[in-house]
Amino acid sequence: MKSQAKADTPGSAPRPTPALHAAARVDKERRVEVCLGARSYDILIGEGLLDRAGEEFAARLAGARAVVVTDETVASLYLTRLEIALTSAGVEFSALTLPAGETTKSFAHLEQTVDAILAARLERGDGVIALGGGVIGDLAGFASAIVKRGTRFVQIPTTLLAQVDSSVGGKTGINTARGKNLVGAFHQPVLVLADIALLDTLSPREFAAGYAEVVKYGLIDRPDFFEFLEKHRGAIFSGGQERAEAIATACEAKAAVVAADEREHGSRALLNLGHTFGHALERAVSYDPARLVHGEGVAIGMALAHRFSVKLGLCSGQDAGRVAAHLKTAGLPTKISDIPGPTLERDALIEAIAQDKKVSRGRLTFILTRGIGEAFVARDVDRADVEHFLDEELPQ
Amino acid sequence: MKSQAKADTPGSAPRPTPALHAAARVDKERRVEVCLGARSYDILIGEGLLDRAGEEFAARLAGARAVVVTDETVASLYLTRLEIALTSAGVEFSALTLPAGETTKSFAHLEQTVDAILAARLERGDGVIALGGGVIGDLAGFASAIVKRGTRFVQIPTTLLAQVDSSVGGKTGINTARGKNLVGAFHQPVLVLADIALLDTLSPREFAAGYAEVVKYGLIDRPDFFEFLEKHRGAIFSGGQERAEAIATACEAKAAVVAADEREHGSRALLNLGHTFGHALERAVSYDPARLVHGEGVAIGMALAHRFSVKLGLCSGQDAGRVAAHLKTAGLPTKISDIPGPTLERDALIEAIAQDKKVSRGRLTFILTRGIGEAFVARDVDRADVEHFLDEELPQ
Ligand SMILES: NC(=O)c1ccc[n+]([C@@H]2O[C@H](COP(=O)([O-])OP(=O)(O)OC[C@H]3O[C@@H](n4cnc5c(N)ncnc54)[C@H](O)[C@@H]3O)[C@@H](O)[C@H]2O)c1
Ligand SMILES: NC(=O)c1ccc[n+]([C@@H]2O[C@H](COP(=O)([O-])OP(=O)(O)OC[C@H]3O[C@@H](n4cnc5c(N)ncnc54)[C@H](O)[C@@H]3O)[C@@H](O)[C@H]2O)c1
Ligand SMILES: [Zn+2]
Ligand SMILES: [Zn+2]
Repeated sequence: MKSQAKADTPGSAPRPTPALHAAARVDKERRVEVCLGARSYDILIGEGLLDRAGEEFAARLAGARAVVVTDETVASLYLTRLEIALTSAGVEFSALTLPAGETTKSFAHLEQTVDAILAARLERGDGVIALGGGVIGDLAGFASAIVKRGTRFVQIPTTLLAQVDSSVGGKTGINTARGKNLVGAFHQPVLVLADIALLDTLSPREFAAGYAEVVKYGLIDRPDFFEFLEKHRGAIFSGGQERAEAIATACEAKAAVVAADEREHGSRALLNLGHTFGHALERAVSYDPARLVHGEGVAIGMALAHRFSVKLGLCSGQDAGRVAAHLKTAGLPTKISDIPGPTLERDALIEAIAQDKKVSRGRLTFILTRGIGEAFVARDVDRADVEHFLDEELPQ
Repeated sequence: MKSQAKADTPGSAPRPTPALHAAARVDKERRVEVCLGARSYDILIGEGLLDRAGEEFAARLAGARAVVVTDETVASLYLTRLEIALTSAGVEFSALTLPAGETTKSFAHLEQTVDAILAARLERGDGVIALGGGVIGDLAGFASAIVKRGTRFVQIPTTLLAQVDSSVGGKTGINTARGKNLVGAFHQPVLVLADIALLDTLSPREFAAGYAEVVKYGLIDRPDFFEFLEKHRGAIFSGGQERAEAIATACEAKAAVVAADEREHGSRALLNLGHTFGHALERAVSYDPARLVHGEGVAIGMALAHRFSVKLGLCSGQDAGRVAAHLKTAGLPTKISDIPGPTLERDALIEAIAQDKKVSRGRLTFILTRGIGEAFVARDVDRADVEHFLDEELPQ
């Protein structure tokens, strides 16, 4: 498949150094195109996009109707504005508001969402709009994928994590009692609207969690971007030009990986840096958000991936230290023992890792690294090595 | 997309006259290839394939494990033979047996099937095997599509309907209270094994129901095949060379349509001949199999489509009569009043038709015909015309 991601901005070299063109585009909207042939789509990044959502929807899906799916927290903050935007653009719609939180990504809520879409008599050319974080995006996207074997899908991500990660790439799904994201579909949106002003109402903890995913792109293969983050972390957190720039770069990084490997046969697996450990931790705390949210799991997971790589003689201890230090400054956990509550069991973690879908014929697959910006897929990791490593990491 | 279906037999012209090469291949296995680029797969048609299922599975998915999904009726007849076949080919597997019947195509059973596949720790390269009729094929195929966003899928269809229709083409899904097949995915199998000897245990009623789908291919665009069926119907029902030949031709006909339009954007819609009315009837009787099974709904639907076409001045009354006569000889219903139980309501039928997914922006889409073998897609059918027609068809 011939496909690539490109940023529609001045100086859109394949991998621009973010700092270079930040200055020129402070207030300007950014557009990142995810190039997937007939399924290509735009990610628009900027302030005030929520109020333009109706226009943007109608411009792409002329005459189409919509079902908005959101959660209670987001609805109370932003649903009215979206409704006004849709109405003034003449888009007929109905809205479904679900409880907030990870437990909403369930079969029961999938069925409820599917029913709402069917009740609205959406046809294949009509659109499901996800207004919310990754939970709503994953759930609504999956429902959109399976109703009538595929309706159109639009993402309006409202968390930092959703803007830089879950809304880009077409992975949708739900959790089951046996694990996270074990059920789902690949279903690309036709449009992503990342209104960065919506992040102002996010709790510091949720913002930090999303930031873990931003850091991830630097750690995978953009050492310059990681340096940019080290330098501008304060500004990014307080919300300035650097925040917008970081989000755009992160989207572009994800879009590039997705375009190269839409269905996760190869290079896309790099996006799982920190996620094999991270998912196992989330599972071990039964997805209790009081103890751990996704991005926090990823932060610990990335720190673990670097330390595990050090232990295997792949990565320098200095790089692993730098990664942990940066995550810590951002208010993120970096050790298993940072998780509040009862101590986690090694065997439960190993078990969760083995059940994770990134297992290939019994051997364990991990994303390991040779240093900052040098992550790679290791398909043949010895279970015993993981066990010994976890023994060291877990409090005795 | 460059794709086509071809039959791997001597004299495999695009549309062979079945009678011409039946004689030469009485006992021989037939192979129809569904050509879909990287997703191409074989349909094997013959006697005794069930006992070779393990070999055929292992030949295509070396080292893969399997989860067999079946229903209680089929399990009692054939599961042991499949288990022996898998075991002797060294295929590790587990089996899930669900209740028989259309109500099994539900969210609840989907969740149960997904859980069984996850419990068996199937990986993406492993296979879900559907052993049963269209209900099991649709449900297991959908579960296979969504577990880990796609596992491998093998069909062993055990009803005539499943062998000539539901197992070919990759449409999978479930029903909801709002209608039939409203939720699902396109998910192609890697192999279809149609063991025609399994049809010997099918009730005459189920055999006739499947036969309606066989007739459909003649009515769509193969008038010669329809003549062949008129001539050999008796032999086909009692099970001879003609039965095998009819099944192979039907598979080939469906494969050709699917290859030309995998995701039902255009010509594939012709396969819905008889189905818009048929689904509405099934819904109107609440999918009560005592009153109507799928193929019977299709038989009535095809007779209605022809009579409706006569009423619209498109088709000769003689052709419509010939179609109804043939279906009747096969023991199939051809009128709404043939359905036992309380009289159906016109408005409920219209409502069910409008909710059917083959509605395009509010206008009604029907497959109509200019005569036997000359079906076409009519996207602009006037609702009032349908109402008047149904008034005539319904007992006053
Ligand atoms: N599909 C993918 O590729 C992908 C990638 C990464 C993560 N994910 C999934 O994303 C999910 C996590 O996403 P998330 O962190 O966005 O969680 P989330 O959707 O649960 O949002 C976190 C919390 O923030 C609230 N919230 C959302 N927007 C807000 C706003 N603007 N102001 C105030 N509060 C707001 C929500 O109501 C929720 O309580 C996980 O289920 C994970 O599996 C998917
Ligand atoms: N996916 C598609 O493209 C497609 C196409 C057409 C129909 N369908 C679906 O197929 C379903 C109908 O399929 P069906 O008619 O095969 O129904 P089914 O699967 O319910 O089978 C009918 C009955 O026959 C029994 N049975 C199956 N094989 C038998 C055998 N060899 N001997 C004795 N009994 C046997 C079953 O237990 C069941 O009770 C519907 O749900 C319909 O929507 C799907
Ligand atoms: Zn993540
Ligand atoms: Zn059918």
